Amino acid sequence: MLEELKKRVYEANMQLPKHGLVTFTWGNVSEIDRETGYFAIKPSGVDYDKLRPEDMVIVDLNGDKIEGEYNPSSDTATHAELYRAFLNIGGIVHTHSPWATSWAQAGRGIPCYGTTHADYMYGEIPCVRNLTQEEIDSGYEKNTGVLIADFFKDKDYEAVPAVLCKNHGPFTWGKDGIDAVHNAVVLEEVAKMAVHTEAINPNVKPAPRELQDKHYYRKHGANAYYGQGK
Amino acid sequence: MLEELKKRVYEANMQLPKHGLVTFTWGNVSEIDRETGYFAIKPSGVDYDKLRPEDMVIVDLNGDKIEGEYNPSSDTATHAELYRAFLNIGGIVHTHSPWATSWAQAGRGIPCYGTTHADYMYGEIPCVRNLTQEEIDSGYEKNTGVLIADFFKDKDYEAVPAVLCKNHGPFTWGKDGIDAVHNAVVLEEVAKMAVHTEAINPNVKPAPRELQDKHYYRKHGANAYYGQGK
Amino acid sequence: MLEELKKRVYEANMQLPKHGLVTFTWGNVSEIDRETGYFAIKPSGVDYDKLRPEDMVIVDLNGDKIEGEYNPSSDTATHAELYRAFLNIGGIVHTHSPWATSWAQAGRGIPCYGTTHADYMYGEIPCVRNLTQEEIDSGYEKNTGVLIADFFKDKDYEAVPAVLCKNHGPFTWGKDGIDAVHNAVVLEEVAKMAVHTEAINPNVKPAPRELQDKHYYRKHGANAYYGQGK
Amino acid sequence: MLEELKKRVYEANMQLPKHGLVTFTWGNVSEIDRETGYFAIKPSGVDYDKLRPEDMVIVDLNGDKIEGEYNPSSDTATHAELYRAFLNIGGIVHTHSPWATSWAQAGRGIPCYGTTHADYMYGEIPCVRNLTQEEIDSGYEKNTGVLIADFFKDKDYEAVPAVLCKNHGPFTWGKDGIDAVHNAVVLEEVAKMAVHTEAINPNVKPAPRELQDKHYYRKHGANAYYGQGK
Repeated sequence: MLEELKKRVYEANMQLPKHGLVTFTWGNVSEIDRETGYFAIKPSGVDYDKLRPEDMVIVDLNGDKIEGEYNPSSDTATHAELYRAFLNIGGIVHTHSPWATSWAQAGRGIPCYGTTHADYMYGEIPCVRNLTQEEIDSGYEKNTGVLIADFFKDKDYEAVPAVLCKNHGPFTWGKDGIDAVHNAVVLEEVAKMAVHTEAINPNVKPAPRELQDKHYYRKHGANAYYGQGK
Repeated sequence: MLEELKKRVYEANMQLPKHGLVTFTWGNVSEIDRETGYFAIKPSGVDYDKLRPEDMVIVDLNGDKIEGEYNPSSDTATHAELYRAFLNIGGIVHTHSPWATSWAQAGRGIPCYGTTHADYMYGEIPCVRNLTQEEIDSGYEKNTGVLIADFFKDKDYEAVPAVLCKNHGPFTWGKDGIDAVHNAVVLEEVAKMAVHTEAINPNVKPAPRELQDKHYYRKHGANAYYGQGK
Repeated sequence: MLEELKKRVYEANMQLPKHGLVTFTWGNVSEIDRETGYFAIKPSGVDYDKLRPEDMVIVDLNGDKIEGEYNPSSDTATHAELYRAFLNIGGIVHTHSPWATSWAQAGRGIPCYGTTHADYMYGEIPCVRNLTQEEIDSGYEKNTGVLIADFFKDKDYEAVPAVLCKNHGPFTWGKDGIDAVHNAVVLEEVAKMAVHTEAINPNVKPAPRELQDKHYYRKHGANAYYGQGK
Repeated sequence: MLEELKKRVYEANMQLPKHGLVTFTWGNVSEIDRETGYFAIKPSGVDYDKLRPEDMVIVDLNGDKIEGEYNPSSDTATHAELYRAFLNIGGIVHTHSPWATSWAQAGRGIPCYGTTHADYMYGEIPCVRNLTQEEIDSGYEKNTGVLIADFFKDKDYEAVPAVLCKNHGPFTWGKDGIDAVHNAVVLEEVAKMAVHTEAINPNVKPAPRELQDKHYYRKHGANAYYGQGK
């Protein structure tokens, strides 16, 4: 079963360079098996073109290594924290994809300027604050996860499956690793178009709420009719 | 005959990823057989790299499925409405190509800044307004087509084979599916250059009318002399 | 001999899509044989992936076809005019490459912001004015060449082997077709970086004259020492 | 031994086009053998797709050729000067990569806007001044190296392994040729994102010092824990 999980996580990781989301080793995907509470994640700092399914590292929800030759991604503690807080998700992605990272560096959330955004993410994609010196010192990666989880405490993390960490970069999530990668691609495309949109019209406003609703609920929930159904 | 139509529409659809106009399944091409009044269109939400000619869906001008295993594109009702209004067109394309979509998100038409634009499209490429709540509720996709058709009622839809839907994205059309794809590529290139043009000169004005006329009529109408003739 | 010329011009034309300078058929390269006064040029509106060496069209300096199955490029009269005015050049390129065309659409010459520019082109790359209605009516393509030649009458066309035509796009030239393509690539790269340079520093000034001189004369003239010599 | 060095330098050079950092021949990598004091460098003006390991040129720390068929890169004297000043480095790269070169043309250092930057380079990437007419005349390439070395005299060249030369372009360095190429890729990515960051938020400030410290020291020094250790 864990072999199957490693294979899935390997394949999800390999989607990152294919979609142009990573330079060198700047990204990682994990996927959790909710029955055991174990998740598989990319090893730290290993090149994508040398990666093999068996290199994926199995860790538990404390971020402790259960199985694997390599050290897990240095962001493992962030993943663990998100899996503990967001019980309905099955996969997580972190990248430094350039357009999303530029919004994170600018310290701004990405407004919903159109249906490309609304089709997958409901409303603004938020940018969470910097960690304090104390938070950095007492477990930087874990506290990154705590901060994100705290931000979403009174929000719908399934409707907005992405966040920007100020001066750092994006995390996305989804029902499994591949779905989280899909959201990372959507985020990058939406982030790029939002920059151009503001260049074309510096006074642009977000898309009307009724249009956002229409597109989001065309794809999500009981009345969805996009695609081929179940 | 419909098999031939499906094959043509399949091939036109496959031009979209080849020209970099689509991410995932965010686009669709249709082509109509004016004798039967049936058109073939991409199925909804099916990956381009799994698409086969036989997957194309045949629908009538009410948007009702005539033949096919899959659900047709969720934008089918928009295509049907445009085929009913624009009697001289044979193909329609919808994408979320990033530069054209950025103009749509910004809510601005694309001014004609040069001959690349004038060679194919006569004057500004318009951006139509948002649908109202009522229009969204009473048939969103159909009313998108009604709005576009209404906008062009007193204009030459053959001279301007493209439109931007505010906060959504572009539709283009042409004499067949491949021609509509060609116009989608032109639109994206023109949209990109218009952004850069305004960055270089924020006070830029559209190209002089006489230059626009020269280039448009060098390629269109009785006195055209570009290319190899008939 | 003309077969050899056609082959060279074919190969130079095929460099345009390879370097990402053309969409569809939006570009052409010619090269002249100064002994006969004939030049070979791409046929009008023929796709690059269907082009063959034998499709190149041979024309004389009046732009009249001497040999070839197809119509020559619609820009042939511009090429002819430039060959008559610039006696030391052997090749000409026209494209709608997006960054250079954006400067042309903006109606601005490209300032020399650095050594990448200065290595190949001495000083600002000029943007010539629009043709008048009368000039358009009395031979648009020929008068485009006349305008460029007139602009360079008291300038060194070998030191600045490129020009932007307002609201249209660039022409470049060189000692042969391949060299003219090389200059078209340099121009596009320089045009792109100049846009970014002005975004980073809106008050930027051109590179100091002594640095421009150093780089230009490191590669050109009697004291050049870049490369492997003769 | 020098054959091995040539092979390594050849392979490092071939990484430049692979990562999209060079157009034509606009870049070069060298690597030094500190025992002999000889370094291998790309020959001047030779195309990347014709380059072979045996074409690399061996020079000494005066920039004099020791072995090789070709002339060494015209930037050899700059490399020599940097090897003499920065005793802990083993490789140097020069490119005209477009985003980094745009910052150089704009005459601005690149602020540290996020962790992508902080992971590899500590603080702002500086832009050094133009050479004077006298410095240009009395050994342009050597004086470029002298200027860079002088700038870093009281700074940590290992913590900031990159510099921009005003109106020219970047140099990067590292423990060997491949490491210097790695830093050239990081620089280009960071330069690109910094442009977008300022477009998104014109009033953006550099990342907080404590975040920069955390990321830099997560990867460097005695307490580093990124990657797989030694």
